Amino acid sequence: MTLKLYVDRMSQPSRAVIIFCKLNGIDFEEIHINLSKRQQLSPEFKEINPMKQVPAIMDGRFKLFESHAILRYLACAFPGIADHWYPADLYKRAKVDSVLDWHHSNLRRGTAGYIFNTVLAPAFGLPLNPQAAAEAKKVLLASLANIESVWLQRKGRFLLGSGQPSIADLSLVCELIELEILDEKDRERIIGPYKRVLKWIDD
Amino acid sequence: MTLKLYVDRMSQPSRAVIIFCKLNGIDFEEIHINLSKRQQLSPEFKEINPMKQVPAIMDGRFKLFESHAILRYLACAFPGIADHWYPADLYKRAKVDSVLDWHHSNLRRGTAGYIFNTVLAPAFGLPLNPQAAAEAKKVLLASLANIESVWLQRKGRFLLGSGQPSIADLSLVCELIELEILDEKDRERIIGPYKRVLKWIDD
Repeated sequence: MTLKLYVDRMSQPSRAVIIFCKLNGIDFEEIHINLSKRQQLSPEFKEINPMKQVPAIMDGRFKLFESHAILRYLACAFPGIADHWYPADLYKRAKVDSVLDWHHSNLRRGTAGYIFNTVLAPAFGLPLNPQAAAEAKKVLLASLANIESVWLQRKGRFLLGSGQPSIADLSLVCELIELEILDEKDRERIIGPYKRVLKWIDD
Repeated sequence: MTLKLYVDRMSQPSRAVIIFCKLNGIDFEEIHINLSKRQQLSPEFKEINPMKQVPAIMDGRFKLFESHAILRYLACAFPGIADHWYPADLYKRAKVDSVLDWHHSNLRRGTAGYIFNTVLAPAFGLPLNPQAAAEAKKVLLASLANIESVWLQRKGRFLLGSGQPSIADLSLVCELIELEILDEKDRERIIGPYKRVLKWIDD
């Protein structure tokens, strides 16, 4: 039975899961849950993910949500996935887990909060909130500084000094690409100073 | 070489790591990083965790931070840890990962934000922020409702219908116990309606 992905390409973590499958030759059926039409709140989708968020997957009868948990699962469940995505080595895996956990309360929180409160809120019937945007921007800038100086500090093109990407690279880069939605000047002001981050995104 | 835990028992994730070690007979040296004295910002501690947060660990020369990554690592690195803490089975493990990932942007965000903005902020030289507290309370109440109806919905005393606790139970319960810091009436108003959650915490 083909893997089912319940996703909206508007959502950063949805894109990370789709890209992981494409890069690794995992066959999947894409089921579009249209967030702007609030389809994630439908009773049908609640059966797939009671938390009413995308992405979620169904692999046979096995249901799973939360993008990091999904990426970890896919990297282990499908044969032939290269080890660098989620290393079997205990120490390397722990470091990837550390980046993934850090992401939630830092880069994710900053990026999602800033974009929602400067651009997206009206599409969901809410006003822009400059104070929330300012708070989120602080978190976003601190996160970019830490990616530049901590996660990318060692040699290697990818996070943690690796020569090849892990699921943490994929998750964080998908988050940062969301900044494309900002006007060019604002994006340049935010991410421009972080040269190593920009090179990493290009890689 | 003994495992070193850099912790402050005032911090919920620090307590989760300490309790995990105690429950599982893992020898450790506890190094107190006093958050109220801002010791997490010292240059010495930055060498251990460049993100300047507790908990962090050093196991021989291996350094790690982020409490969930630490709990996953400890459950795998030390011999004789019972499987229920972080199941080797791919499907069971993915479900535990799903709870752990969910925690960050939901229960953790709600609890930490509410307590900081109703009680703790003055201890850090900041004013209480009623608007931020109200936002965090919404997240906290929604999280409690989801623990009650989603994570605890099946049979079994613990999350995901299990008869024995996982590292996700430990992490979430340590977060909820932080609510003890609230005055009794406020705590009762918040958590009182969630009977299954209260029983789970007692178990």
